[in-house]
Amino acid sequence: MEADYLPREKVFRDPVHNYIHVQQRVILDLINTPEFQRLRRIKQLGTTSLTFHGAEHSRFGHCLGVYEITRRICNTFAQNYSSQKPGDGCWDDHERLVVLCAALLHDIGHGPYSHTFEHIFHTDHEAWTQKIITSPQTEVNQILQQISPDFPQQVASVIAKTYPNEQVVQMISSQIDADRMDYLLRDAYYTGTQYGMFDLTRIMRVIRPYQGGIAFNIDGMHAVEDYIVSRFQMYQQVYFHPVSRGMEVVLMQLLNRAQYLYDQDKLAQFAMPHLLIPFFKKQISVTDYIRLDDGVLNTYFNIWRDHPDPILRDLAHRFLDRHPFKSITFEPAQQEKIQQLQTLVQNAGFDPHFYTAINNSFDLPYDLYHPSAKEPKTQIELQKPDGSLQELSTVSPIVQALSGRESGDHRFYFPKEMLDQPESSMFASDLAAFQKHIINGALK
Amino acid sequence: MEADYLPREKVFRDPVHNYIHVQQRVILDLINTPEFQRLRRIKQLGTTSLTFHGAEHSRFGHCLGVYEITRRICNTFAQNYSSQKPGDGCWDDHERLVVLCAALLHDIGHGPYSHTFEHIFHTDHEAWTQKIITSPQTEVNQILQQISPDFPQQVASVIAKTYPNEQVVQMISSQIDADRMDYLLRDAYYTGTQYGMFDLTRIMRVIRPYQGGIAFNIDGMHAVEDYIVSRFQMYQQVYFHPVSRGMEVVLMQLLNRAQYLYDQDKLAQFAMPHLLIPFFKKQISVTDYIRLDDGVLNTYFNIWRDHPDPILRDLAHRFLDRHPFKSITFEPAQQEKIQQLQTLVQNAGFDPHFYTAINNSFDLPYDLYHPSAKEPKTQIELQKPDGSLQELSTVSPIVQALSGRESGDHRFYFPKEMLDQPESSMFASDLAAFQKHIINGALK
Amino acid sequence: MEADYLPREKVFRDPVHNYIHVQQRVILDLINTPEFQRLRRIKQLGTTSLTFHGAEHSRFGHCLGVYEITRRICNTFAQNYSSQKPGDGCWDDHERLVVLCAALLHDIGHGPYSHTFEHIFHTDHEAWTQKIITSPQTEVNQILQQISPDFPQQVASVIAKTYPNEQVVQMISSQIDADRMDYLLRDAYYTGTQYGMFDLTRIMRVIRPYQGGIAFNIDGMHAVEDYIVSRFQMYQQVYFHPVSRGMEVVLMQLLNRAQYLYDQDKLAQFAMPHLLIPFFKKQISVTDYIRLDDGVLNTYFNIWRDHPDPILRDLAHRFLDRHPFKSITFEPAQQEKIQQLQTLVQNAGFDPHFYTAINNSFDLPYDLYHPSAKEPKTQIELQKPDGSLQELSTVSPIVQALSGRESGDHRFYFPKEMLDQPESSMFASDLAAFQKHIINGALK
Amino acid sequence: MEADYLPREKVFRDPVHNYIHVQQRVILDLINTPEFQRLRRIKQLGTTSLTFHGAEHSRFGHCLGVYEITRRICNTFAQNYSSQKPGDGCWDDHERLVVLCAALLHDIGHGPYSHTFEHIFHTDHEAWTQKIITSPQTEVNQILQQISPDFPQQVASVIAKTYPNEQVVQMISSQIDADRMDYLLRDAYYTGTQYGMFDLTRIMRVIRPYQGGIAFNIDGMHAVEDYIVSRFQMYQQVYFHPVSRGMEVVLMQLLNRAQYLYDQDKLAQFAMPHLLIPFFKKQISVTDYIRLDDGVLNTYFNIWRDHPDPILRDLAHRFLDRHPFKSITFEPAQQEKIQQLQTLVQNAGFDPHFYTAINNSFDLPYDLYHPSAKEPKTQIELQKPDGSLQELSTVSPIVQALSGRESGDHRFYFPKEMLDQPESSMFASDLAAFQKHIINGALK
Repeated sequence: MEADYLPREKVFRDPVHNYIHVQQRVILDLINTPEFQRLRRIKQLGTTSLTFHGAEHSRFGHCLGVYEITRRICNTFAQNYSSQKPGDGCWDDHERLVVLCAALLHDIGHGPYSHTFEHIFHTDHEAWTQKIITSPQTEVNQILQQISPDFPQQVASVIAKTYPNEQVVQMISSQIDADRMDYLLRDAYYTGTQYGMFDLTRIMRVIRPYQGGIAFNIDGMHAVEDYIVSRFQMYQQVYFHPVSRGMEVVLMQLLNRAQYLYDQDKLAQFAMPHLLIPFFKKQISVTDYIRLDDGVLNTYFNIWRDHPDPILRDLAHRFLDRHPFKSITFEPAQQEKIQQLQTLVQNAGFDPHFYTAINNSFDLPYDLYHPSAKEPKTQIELQKPDGSLQELSTVSPIVQALSGRESGDHRFYFPKEMLDQPESSMFASDLAAFQKHIINGALK
Repeated sequence: MEADYLPREKVFRDPVHNYIHVQQRVILDLINTPEFQRLRRIKQLGTTSLTFHGAEHSRFGHCLGVYEITRRICNTFAQNYSSQKPGDGCWDDHERLVVLCAALLHDIGHGPYSHTFEHIFHTDHEAWTQKIITSPQTEVNQILQQISPDFPQQVASVIAKTYPNEQVVQMISSQIDADRMDYLLRDAYYTGTQYGMFDLTRIMRVIRPYQGGIAFNIDGMHAVEDYIVSRFQMYQQVYFHPVSRGMEVVLMQLLNRAQYLYDQDKLAQFAMPHLLIPFFKKQISVTDYIRLDDGVLNTYFNIWRDHPDPILRDLAHRFLDRHPFKSITFEPAQQEKIQQLQTLVQNAGFDPHFYTAINNSFDLPYDLYHPSAKEPKTQIELQKPDGSLQELSTVSPIVQALSGRESGDHRFYFPKEMLDQPESSMFASDLAAFQKHIINGALK
Repeated sequence: MEADYLPREKVFRDPVHNYIHVQQRVILDLINTPEFQRLRRIKQLGTTSLTFHGAEHSRFGHCLGVYEITRRICNTFAQNYSSQKPGDGCWDDHERLVVLCAALLHDIGHGPYSHTFEHIFHTDHEAWTQKIITSPQTEVNQILQQISPDFPQQVASVIAKTYPNEQVVQMISSQIDADRMDYLLRDAYYTGTQYGMFDLTRIMRVIRPYQGGIAFNIDGMHAVEDYIVSRFQMYQQVYFHPVSRGMEVVLMQLLNRAQYLYDQDKLAQFAMPHLLIPFFKKQISVTDYIRLDDGVLNTYFNIWRDHPDPILRDLAHRFLDRHPFKSITFEPAQQEKIQQLQTLVQNAGFDPHFYTAINNSFDLPYDLYHPSAKEPKTQIELQKPDGSLQELSTVSPIVQALSGRESGDHRFYFPKEMLDQPESSMFASDLAAFQKHIINGALK
Repeated sequence: MEADYLPREKVFRDPVHNYIHVQQRVILDLINTPEFQRLRRIKQLGTTSLTFHGAEHSRFGHCLGVYEITRRICNTFAQNYSSQKPGDGCWDDHERLVVLCAALLHDIGHGPYSHTFEHIFHTDHEAWTQKIITSPQTEVNQILQQISPDFPQQVASVIAKTYPNEQVVQMISSQIDADRMDYLLRDAYYTGTQYGMFDLTRIMRVIRPYQGGIAFNIDGMHAVEDYIVSRFQMYQQVYFHPVSRGMEVVLMQLLNRAQYLYDQDKLAQFAMPHLLIPFFKKQISVTDYIRLDDGVLNTYFNIWRDHPDPILRDLAHRFLDRHPFKSITFEPAQQEKIQQLQTLVQNAGFDPHFYTAINNSFDLPYDLYHPSAKEPKTQIELQKPDGSLQELSTVSPIVQALSGRESGDHRFYFPKEMLDQPESSMFASDLAAFQKHIINGALK
């Protein structure tokens, strides 16, 4: 694949990678499409920015960052491990263009508040990424087609992990890929936490291609280990923060209520949310999808502050003015007690269908390759001086401890009012009963 | 003024100041108001984030940051320069609450894309800040009133610089105040540039109260000097970046066009922009004002992508998909030539009322106190060991060079299409004529 | 204990903690003693600076850093957990002075290249620390005595861990104390690695006193976990670096050879190493001890470049001009093979007593409290909201994996010449035989 | 010039540049010479480390850093501005080896505490740099000769600024060269100040070769301006710090006294300072010179703590235990008053020849090229899009303000005892008279 080069390299100043370097015209053209520019209006971390106020960055910067890390890996590979003949396990730099485009576009299908939105409207950002890349009506597709008619499909297949060259696939999708490396560093930078920091420059020195994909020189083992720990800690400390999930739950119930009202023909009597209608109808075109962003959702919520439905109105207020639901942890075996709590919430005047929720968040920090798994993981391989491979967790006791073990918690969410001083409430006995079930932030 | 203290200090993780510490309940309550939470939906730097993609931070974090710097100044003053008797020129810690509230709320009146928005709709964020603080219908006002009935007015007077204690006023508003110190550091952090960095901890060590306001120990002169240079460079390099201004100009013309269509009753025939109507009508209530944010504007622009008016449609597309107008610098004396250029733009098919603009951006990095000036500056005073004062620019040749001297440029903006290869255009001769007027990015 | 305060706080600019704040006169006086200033001439990391060239910092900065962290812990404790009555498990700020002095002086007994030097000359830096603090002829002792006659002994007992207040002892000596926290951050900063970085400000927010010593709020668990991982990685990656140990081994053999020559009356015939003689004689006064520093040792080595003994001369050259011994890892069971290697080294012309060495470096990253252990560890306790404690490794799978498990390796060191191309050497067959024993950097 | 490449690039971890990359064998061989390794034992900042305790780094790291910046400039030039035919003003990459060697070795002739040492012993580090490079008995010379017999002379001529290619010379020696850029960043990092920080990556993007040497694209003007300000501030705040100069003055007088005693045959009767004798005799061979380092000087000072001469003994104590002379500023016209002060110092029991000193420190932050100057400066040129040049100070008011203007001060140094409370001294009236001459740290 040959690409036009820009007469002079263009750079984007980036706080994480210092500069993002763009050399091929197709990359610049992709960045300038409406589909890609839309990513500026979609926050990378959704409701997490409501807990870590510094983390208001968008998916736009993240996508540039994944592109840049990928570009640097290609440079390292081309300089030190350039393929001499097919099948030698080294890097064929003709793959550069397809992997750079895939890196840049891997999140192009994300919508606003992805996780929650997808849950309610049954959309899937990965499917939308494929669609945006391969649908002839998008500018992204048209630009990719200028390389060759089947180029859009090739780029899409890298993201779908069906591209034949494993090195290309693993750069974008594996347990230590450009995507994860960028988001950990970026989210750590913007939240102001240090958990996500790891030594990218050292990883760049030890990463290398091999026959089966991507490996790391064994003397860089600790840099990889540190990355795994960083990822683990970001999940536990930032991504699974109970307050952010308390806002996510409010958002989910707000959209639930809107869908409920729409289904009863009671939503739009007030003011027609044009841009959302296709989603309520479940008939979504590419154009509809591309119109959405965080601001569009927030604007309809803003309008719903005055909606006749009191629950919609209240939930819109809670979301926009940041009044998260509170939560307690519980064990799966305590399911029955949760129902008792829901009854108490109902007694206190809140419809539990819209004012309580279960949120379970679990992450698998690292896992071995299990061919029979639904989505088998690419395990991380270390390469010894004599060329033999050794799987990471056999060398690192830390990774061994995290391997194959999900971390997270089960939480039950409810309105903050349930924790008010009982005596100050007209529902004194229900509040008191509710509060008796809690100790050290957990269900007793 | 006495305030309730929280049972346990609450902190906000912040990437610039590490932690924001909140100790008084009133501060926490103010942060939780809808008026303050709205600041999360208004970008600090407006269109600058379209040039420096990392700088997507909102006014929310900045306001917390100004509060935090102010809090640290109060701590330093209370620890080292606590007033022993009235009029001794030292710090009276009873002023802490009023200055903290003023710091937190000083930008509460900002709307979306402030500069441009105000220009079109004749609003003024400083007046709105006063209004939000003093209007009984806002939650901000109600919380401040709990301290005392005249407390809102006192807070407002600090921001209006009419509060009697000059130390309090200068902490928030002077040529080296908590506001400027926070935004320089914050904008530098988020853009990823280093120009705005200066040594805040050193400034915190040398800042001190005196009879007439706030001064700096003379042995910290270079820290203050460095701050002035940082500020100068941020203006020249970041805030006045010609590409951001190219987007600002597109935004201005887009709003201009919308107002123009509204005045002709042609805007809302398509889809009623409810939340914007009061602004077009110039009848704006506090409630109307508080409803606006960046997302609301962008959502209407998004809807206008399908508006029947081709100019509105085109400008909405240019703004949302980031197609800035291009520019050249010119000298005031070249006004006549500008008209020639506008004619060429018109010949090429663009209505110059909506497709060209003049943007002059100038900043005064530092100035002496001139009592007769419209807004006299508080000059920066250095204090010697024997207590005598010396004005900064008399000691620093660098500050001397910048003092009283505006820096910036005059730019003429026009559609990028004017720089196309003439031969590829149906307006070949006009483009060629236009391009002949330009050399080294300036009007010949 | 009451201490004079300085009229104005004095600060030392520090790259790790920004500023070191000194408020009591006794602290400033201790810093100004010859015993403390001597620490400027002793590198913190000894031969590690020969691998990580940036890490040339001395024990002086580290001691100030430990003092500063201790000071900040005291501030936090005094502000949030101030004792109301004896035995309430809170912090008694009368302990501040003794713990600050102990923090500052905890390393005052370190000599040049401590580890190696102690091994050869049978000195012990902890015993010397006690001696310098309690011997009436030192300035340190005289200054401490000004507080009270038994104050030096109290300070010494904190370092000896016999001081009655466990909170005081654990601030300086535990598995997460001010000493370790400073050296990890400092060594990471100066080496330019990022392994040692952890979130000190977060740890400062969750550290708290309790009846039995020092604990951490359980919601700060991950910050403590991250510290344990950082420490583990610094040991594996920096402190146990095989090349630094290759220089340490050269140094050890150089001093061995000097002692050997001294014992045979052949050392000083050339040039009397006055300042070292007491150490060769094993009759060391406090004055003798305090005279030594890195430069003194290096200067004698420098002079020995011309010594008549060829082995002393050669080892001095290898040390000063940085020619480390090379190494391979081995397993304890391979002891016999090591002897074969030593014979081959001898065949190649190198006396194995001075040209080979075993260096085993192991660290225990974390351990539980075992009352029967030789030096029982203080385990790290997390405190829940209801006040109950939970030991760290029961909550953190990562710490669990590292707990009670020594990490490190066994290495055999030999001259680099043993790895030369055999054909280029007059000892071709011995070199070839030697090299056959090695694969992937390990003994076969 | 062709050089052998290493089979695999070697890196040195560096806290300032992250990694130093070594690709040619000759560079690695030069680093491994005794002459270069000696730089590890010579502090970069001499007595400044006694004020900024973090700044204990040696010339070794700085030399690697200058090499690394030079290497990156070569890479940029080779990639973007590679010469197509002789005389086209672009970069000829055959110059790479000579400029890299010159960068690495430019400080090889530095001795311990250079400035002071040279003043007393009339040595000149630049002359010694030439000598070490060109003398056949050094290892450095032998390694350079392997490239070609005249290669040492070529390297030396780059440092002497007589090499014909101005681009090569200016990379190492100009007002914005790799030497200055490294030491500013490095000294800022190690002192923990931020004054020396400037945006190296941005400068690397705008630096470019031209016919007459090295220029900068005009759109990077502010990055260059910021560098000039950083340099100015490091001089004023760090390099000219009055306390460091107070230690420098003690050192100078200590060496003065030693020479004085040597000249009277009274120095060595106590203990022969073998390694220093050639310097007292002014008969210095290359071998003698290379033997010296900071530790050697300090060791002799250490021994002189017991010397029979009371002044030598006292000054050695003041230097090693860090008791700087105090100082006041004065104006040149006040020369006569200085003599009065010296008389008072003498009256108080201190020989003014050894206990007082004048220290004038001035720096010229930037200057234009003046062909008639003793050492004409290379002025900084900015290049416009059309290729024309513009001198920096004509565009930057800040640089204009600093251009051609020396900054610094005159100071008179004396023993701290002169500032004691008069009443506590047996020289009460002299002290009182002395102190009356001082106000705000200056001579009245």
